[in-house]
Amino acid sequence: MDTGKYIEQNKDRILTDLNSLLSQKSVSPEGEGISECVNLISNLCLNYGFDACEIVETEGHPGIVAEKVLDEDAPTVAFFGHYDVQSVKEDNWNGNPFNPVVKDENGKRIFARGAGDNKGQFFAHLCAVDFLKENLGVNVILLLEGEEEKGSPHLSQILEHEPLDQTDVVVCADGGMEMDDMPVVELGCRGMLYTHLKVKTGEKNLHSGEFGGLSRNAGFEISQILASLKDDTGTVKIDGFYENVREPSEKDLESVREIEKRTRFNPEKSDEFGKGEGLEKKFLYPQLNIAGIESGFGGKGAETIIPSEAEASIGVRMVPDQSSTEIMEKMEKHIESVIS
Amino acid sequence: MDTGKYIEQNKDRILTDLNSLLSQKSVSPEGEGISECVNLISNLCLNYGFDACEIVETEGHPGIVAEKVLDEDAPTVAFFGHYDVQSVKEDNWNGNPFNPVVKDENGKRIFARGAGDNKGQFFAHLCAVDFLKENLGVNVILLLEGEEEKGSPHLSQILEHEPLDQTDVVVCADGGMEMDDMPVVELGCRGMLYTHLKVKTGEKNLHSGEFGGLSRNAGFEISQILASLKDDTGTVKIDGFYENVREPSEKDLESVREIEKRTRFNPEKSDEFGKGEGLEKKFLYPQLNIAGIESGFGGKGAETIIPSEAEASIGVRMVPDQSSTEIMEKMEKHIESVIS
Repeated sequence: MDTGKYIEQNKDRILTDLNSLLSQKSVSPEGEGISECVNLISNLCLNYGFDACEIVETEGHPGIVAEKVLDEDAPTVAFFGHYDVQSVKEDNWNGNPFNPVVKDENGKRIFARGAGDNKGQFFAHLCAVDFLKENLGVNVILLLEGEEEKGSPHLSQILEHEPLDQTDVVVCADGGMEMDDMPVVELGCRGMLYTHLKVKTGEKNLHSGEFGGLSRNAGFEISQILASLKDDTGTVKIDGFYENVREPSEKDLESVREIEKRTRFNPEKSDEFGKGEGLEKKFLYPQLNIAGIESGFGGKGAETIIPSEAEASIGVRMVPDQSSTEIMEKMEKHIESVIS
Repeated sequence: MDTGKYIEQNKDRILTDLNSLLSQKSVSPEGEGISECVNLISNLCLNYGFDACEIVETEGHPGIVAEKVLDEDAPTVAFFGHYDVQSVKEDNWNGNPFNPVVKDENGKRIFARGAGDNKGQFFAHLCAVDFLKENLGVNVILLLEGEEEKGSPHLSQILEHEPLDQTDVVVCADGGMEMDDMPVVELGCRGMLYTHLKVKTGEKNLHSGEFGGLSRNAGFEISQILASLKDDTGTVKIDGFYENVREPSEKDLESVREIEKRTRFNPEKSDEFGKGEGLEKKFLYPQLNIAGIESGFGGKGAETIIPSEAEASIGVRMVPDQSSTEIMEKMEKHIESVIS
């Protein structure tokens, strides 16, 4: 049987099952619907041909490990993904995000919280096992965690229980596609350092008429720090930030140019500059990003306060030979030099 | 009868009336309790010896104009204040802010929303009229508006209806005291320009892994602009900002030194510098203040977004010979030079 025939014959069942998976809440930060989602996936795994499915308890949300073992001597492929989804801001949705909707936007697409991250992806693996059945040719492990959207704090506990050292390949099936019609195999990804910068200049907000010019302003000071992190061309100004960045090989650069061509990358729409040209920035160089800033009064009216606190979220994408300890130390040193 | 005796004889009545005034909501932004408060004040004015009290309708909250005319030829003093209060964040109060509480903190004090801004102040004028009665020696107008906490958008409508051009003195009885035991007569106050700066770099937030280094970041750009407004010593860097600032006279400087002495001003606690020494900053020089910043993600977790929007609230306190038009133009010019 070919794929087309399998899909045709099983379309209704597949859509019904995907629909129930997407309808089931599994919101990471609030922990909503977690156990119901775990049970649902466990049943789906068995229905789609896995031999066994274990729920691995952790100090956080449980992990799921489903296995299909054809032959002890065959190679083993582990697919890694997650069943949890991010919190929902209802305002950002046209309807209930746990009520999947099919829309025709450049072909049919299903819209629901988690459809593209990561329920749709691992459900495809279930379908693949169901389709290939005894013709898989490999043993398959499906490993799902339930806290990816919270930074995977207990993933290590799942891996202690189910070590992957007997597997030959681990495929992390969580990521984007450059183009709708072009499947992507990523051969690596950058690391991430995510941190919060907090500036506190006093115990409480002060009145700007009474204390303006006489007191420090946390909003102004955090602006000074954040503005100092990069120059106008997007180059990070933290001392030694690019020190350990590995020089791209000819092959690396060729691959990037190839991706640029195939994805119709538009350099005109590339606004910041910094290290690297075009998509090199994204694939081969580290980046520093300010994800958010909060200080003092944020409403529409007019509060005459001098804010005593300010906070910013900063994320750094790191490349091989950089480490989070190294970058964190350099960033701290930089901030100390700015405020002193 | 002297003041002490009047207070002694009328204490219970005064406290009961002040209590009902403070218990009555009159929240400006939500418009809560406005008409009830207006009626209450109108009755109080008549009970405390005013001849008449008119409620002046506007397109917003009404104004109140109470009059006591002793003699057409006597001078007329107008007291200007407001009966509205700011919104309440319950978290910032130990109990219901409309349930006045008496506490012993350096002498007895009444705590309630509006007690110090501005109900306590204008209620004192009612008591003064009640105490002095026919011995006032002047005609009195009490003019209260109900939108001071919203920037007085319809004050002009009250003044069209009740022009103050026949009054000899207008006393604005809304302000602070430098010391608890030292009454203050202010001979002027600085002007205020309050504005919102919005930076928009795109239609929506982008993913920092996908677009980091390739797209502008509104949070970073607003930080650059805000950081550029002042130098490390607190001096405003907007070109020509201090151009029209009137040179303080010997008398001005003497007064400031005198206030510093009497208020035990502590220069050690003065953190920023800029123009002027000590309290000169507050009384004689303009100040620029960042009241708040908001951009992107403000929570505790980790969102990997590049914010497409950022907003800041900026307030400028201006001194004689500066104008809001002039300062706004200079600030706009400055911002344009930073972003270009």
